[in-house]
Amino acid sequence: MGSPARATATRERMIDATITLLRRSGLSGAGINEIVRESGAPKGSVYHFFPDGKQQIVTEALNVYSQRVVAFIDAAMSGARTPEAKVEALFKAFAKRVEQGDFLHSCPAATVCLDLDAGLEPLRVVVADALDDYLNVIEKHFPMPDRRRGRSFAGLLLTAIEGGYIRSRAERSGKPFREAGAWLAELAARESP
Amino acid sequence: MGSPARATATRERMIDATITLLRRSGLSGAGINEIVRESGAPKGSVYHFFPDGKQQIVTEALNVYSQRVVAFIDAAMSGARTPEAKVEALFKAFAKRVEQGDFLHSCPAATVCLDLDAGLEPLRVVVADALDDYLNVIEKHFPMPDRRRGRSFAGLLLTAIEGGYIRSRAERSGKPFREAGAWLAELAARESP
Repeated sequence: MGSPARATATRERMIDATITLLRRSGLSGAGINEIVRESGAPKGSVYHFFPDGKQQIVTEALNVYSQRVVAFIDAAMSGARTPEAKVEALFKAFAKRVEQGDFLHSCPAATVCLDLDAGLEPLRVVVADALDDYLNVIEKHFPMPDRRRGRSFAGLLLTAIEGGYIRSRAERSGKPFREAGAWLAELAARESP
Repeated sequence: MGSPARATATRERMIDATITLLRRSGLSGAGINEIVRESGAPKGSVYHFFPDGKQQIVTEALNVYSQRVVAFIDAAMSGARTPEAKVEALFKAFAKRVEQGDFLHSCPAATVCLDLDAGLEPLRVVVADALDDYLNVIEKHFPMPDRRRGRSFAGLLLTAIEGGYIRSRAERSGKPFREAGAWLAELAARESP
């Protein structure tokens, strides 16, 4: 597998390829053969770097990618000052994201989640952890006097983001995100002191 | 394939098996072999009844099932009289639905949507049509003076339902639906004359 630096680069390329494939079509699109093809890595390298195979590489890909989503969510809202401006900015950022990806990519936590069956319990936990990370960073931007209410509002925003991806991909339009953002900004405005 | 009545029954069994598999894990779980196993139909019968193979049977399954979802949505709200009661009833019905399915089933339009890649454009259209049918029946329950606003509100509810499935399956809890229902009922109450 060459030098350590090269090995690290190959491993990262495989993780990135897996992320791309998961965002497009979930577990069904991220087979070992597809990962090898998308990454350009030698076939044997999958089991060399990920001896537990597909579940291991998918788990690592979800963990790496969820931290990027957390940063994306945080950055989207950091420039806005009022709760309603934060909500609008968040949903506009996701609308732009899905438009830039030509409506072919979405949240890999969601694509994997809807591919789960009872035999994939460990992956369900990885998905739940990713969603919890998203929830925490959203919640941080909406401090409310009643903390439970703040967390619940953040939960509503996360629910709408995940649903927005489904409708946007199906309708090939960023409108579901913008529409949800406008309505939920109204709600946020009412919660402001 | 036996008598016409028996052939119809076999065909329906295959459609129902496909629906079950799609609701569980989307396209990845609904291979021809899985459909044959789940339905108990003879292997040759898939191509006998569905000469165009997987895309054909998935299309028919989505079309059949979306009409059941439309009836479910309509029934969930028909007993409620105010907009806020309708919203609460709708989300409670979905919470119960996902709980009864032990968090292993969701909307097949969504599971298929997140499995799509650029090569599956015909299926994307089928998914978009199903979502449009859901939107229309929701909209019917929220007549607003500004018709565009009513449709947009119905869109928000649909977005939250689809996102609710993702979070509920990941978290194994009906709470995301109930939480969204409570917030969106507040919004609906404000829209009432």
